[in-house]
Amino acid sequence: MSLESIHKPTIIVDEQICKDNILRMLNKAYASGATLRPHFKTHQNSKIGAWFKEVGVSKIAVSSVSMASQFANDGWNDIMIAFPFNVREADEINTLAQNVRLGLIVSCIECAELLAKSITTEVDYYLKIDVGSHRTGFDAKDSIGISNSIEIINENKLLFFKGFVAHAGHTYNAANHDEIRSIYRIGVSELFKLKSQFIEKYPDIIISWGDTPSCSIVDDFSGIEELRPGNFVFYDLMQLKLGSCLIDNISAVVACPVVAKNFSRNEIVIYGGAVHFSKESTVCDDGINHYGIIVDLNSNGKWSFVKEKFFLRKISQEHGIITANDEFLQKIAVGDLIGVLPVHSCLTANLIRDFYFV
Amino acid sequence: MSLESIHKPTIIVDEQICKDNILRMLNKAYASGATLRPHFKTHQNSKIGAWFKEVGVSKIAVSSVSMASQFANDGWNDIMIAFPFNVREADEINTLAQNVRLGLIVSCIECAELLAKSITTEVDYYLKIDVGSHRTGFDAKDSIGISNSIEIINENKLLFFKGFVAHAGHTYNAANHDEIRSIYRIGVSELFKLKSQFIEKYPDIIISWGDTPSCSIVDDFSGIEELRPGNFVFYDLMQLKLGSCLIDNISAVVACPVVAKNFSRNEIVIYGGAVHFSKESTVCDDGINHYGIIVDLNSNGKWSFVKEKFFLRKISQEHGIITANDEFLQKIAVGDLIGVLPVHSCLTANLIRDFYFV
Repeated sequence: MSLESIHKPTIIVDEQICKDNILRMLNKAYASGATLRPHFKTHQNSKIGAWFKEVGVSKIAVSSVSMASQFANDGWNDIMIAFPFNVREADEINTLAQNVRLGLIVSCIECAELLAKSITTEVDYYLKIDVGSHRTGFDAKDSIGISNSIEIINENKLLFFKGFVAHAGHTYNAANHDEIRSIYRIGVSELFKLKSQFIEKYPDIIISWGDTPSCSIVDDFSGIEELRPGNFVFYDLMQLKLGSCLIDNISAVVACPVVAKNFSRNEIVIYGGAVHFSKESTVCDDGINHYGIIVDLNSNGKWSFVKEKFFLRKISQEHGIITANDEFLQKIAVGDLIGVLPVHSCLTANLIRDFYFV
Repeated sequence: MSLESIHKPTIIVDEQICKDNILRMLNKAYASGATLRPHFKTHQNSKIGAWFKEVGVSKIAVSSVSMASQFANDGWNDIMIAFPFNVREADEINTLAQNVRLGLIVSCIECAELLAKSITTEVDYYLKIDVGSHRTGFDAKDSIGISNSIEIINENKLLFFKGFVAHAGHTYNAANHDEIRSIYRIGVSELFKLKSQFIEKYPDIIISWGDTPSCSIVDDFSGIEELRPGNFVFYDLMQLKLGSCLIDNISAVVACPVVAKNFSRNEIVIYGGAVHFSKESTVCDDGINHYGIIVDLNSNGKWSFVKEKFFLRKISQEHGIITANDEFLQKIAVGDLIGVLPVHSCLTANLIRDFYFV
């Protein structure tokens, strides 16, 4: 198989790098006595899912009911829907829960009431605790709200309280590793305190901790029962910038056909725009915004850095504009494929559903 | 039919507003003696496509080969693929062109050579002229490059030169209507000059002009044979800001389930994030970035502004965070739907493929 079969923007996944990422995270979880429950929203792909199964992973997280259905069809039967319970999808959830063990997330007391009222099939549930990202969840100090919510939900005997989940999304804004470690320490100490308040009444509850930056950078997860990172399977430029990975750990690159060249502006136009990369951008060393870094693609799908760094500088719906130099413009022909390391692999993989494995 | 059937982020399309938008643009084109070739990348929807057919539209533009196939299946048979010819999709194009009249776009001389070599079924082609957006296309003053390209392509007797296309994407950066009108005047004057140089040799060539801002704001398109806007079918906040439309012309609103509330931060959490809205943002009056404006949804799917303007302030992959006030927080219940006017309807419609028509 050669890259000849790639006709439009396609994610090339380096199987070896991807499997190494999986194994590294799995071993890290094991070393701390934690279970890995990988978040599958990053890849949403059956084949990559199977790689996790091969190394013994049996629990997963997803971010929507439809994604839960997709992986239930692939034979996964312990699936956390790591997004606040959406009562409007209660029917779909009740149906799906007849076949697989679902875990639902409760983020506020109003959600607790709705959950208790609408669930008609056995499901697990977790309370979401806000450890500082301030997106959603109970304040860790709100023992009364938390306690009341559990009591309200447990009125429905089909619902089983499994513990506390947290996602430290604010690690994405951290300046360095120390700050990420500090976010982790503060977050887990709040969760430990909370668990100690409820462990007597609910002896089987666990703490489930997410986010790729902290799961990649912290080494010791003692006291945490479950890790729930997702992005680590591919990594990307955002993670590279945070120091969650090395450039050689990035396992997904987007192959884009070159559709035009402009010598007067030193620009290469690719088929690859906002409907492929989303509009997630980052800032490079020279302070200019960009949507990806250009790499050299070999005919076997392996990639390496080009000597001089080029960037995907502008995107519109389908067009991408790369600012190049004379030498690179001469080297690249219209019709070639150009490799682009994406800023955010989750959003890119959600848009480009065509994967090419090497 | 009520909004009860909406369980996840869904685009509500107001049929009357949408049809009014279609008719207004169609009449505007007719009044100047131009043909409307609407760009279907905005909606990508068969039903909305049919509304264009009902009022006599017979030619369309799309932005990918797969979109061309989709609308060919719907019975459209004059389809311009308004994106630079991608030689890697030549086989798909040749196959599709056996059933429909395709128009392809050539953006540089290297593309011209590849097109001439790879086309085996009759197709039309247009040269893309850069009228100032500097995304792609020939410089209007590059008569030699243009002339050479036409000669190279015409060596292949299956290829028919139809004229010049332009997309004045820089209207999106214009400060006001006058600037948009000026971009239009400068652009078309270059195209008129170009056409006059080639009309003797190619008497049937036309000028095809795109972009919703100029097509909405300019009134007189004399001398232009074809208008190719797309976004006008829905409009959005970006167009509202440019003055391409009034707030009452926006025909698409995203209905998002409320999944949590946070009283301490005055925040409402919705199911609606980057995988629904993309990451396109704009800046509101107070200078703060946002991803959408909140509207009141009636039970019949009609919407109106809430008294105090609220915004979709933060989004992550699936979560959206609305900053509200006490009154609004009290009024909205978890499980309700909240309406969000999107910043960029094209990217939103590309992500949310579920439409609900009212």
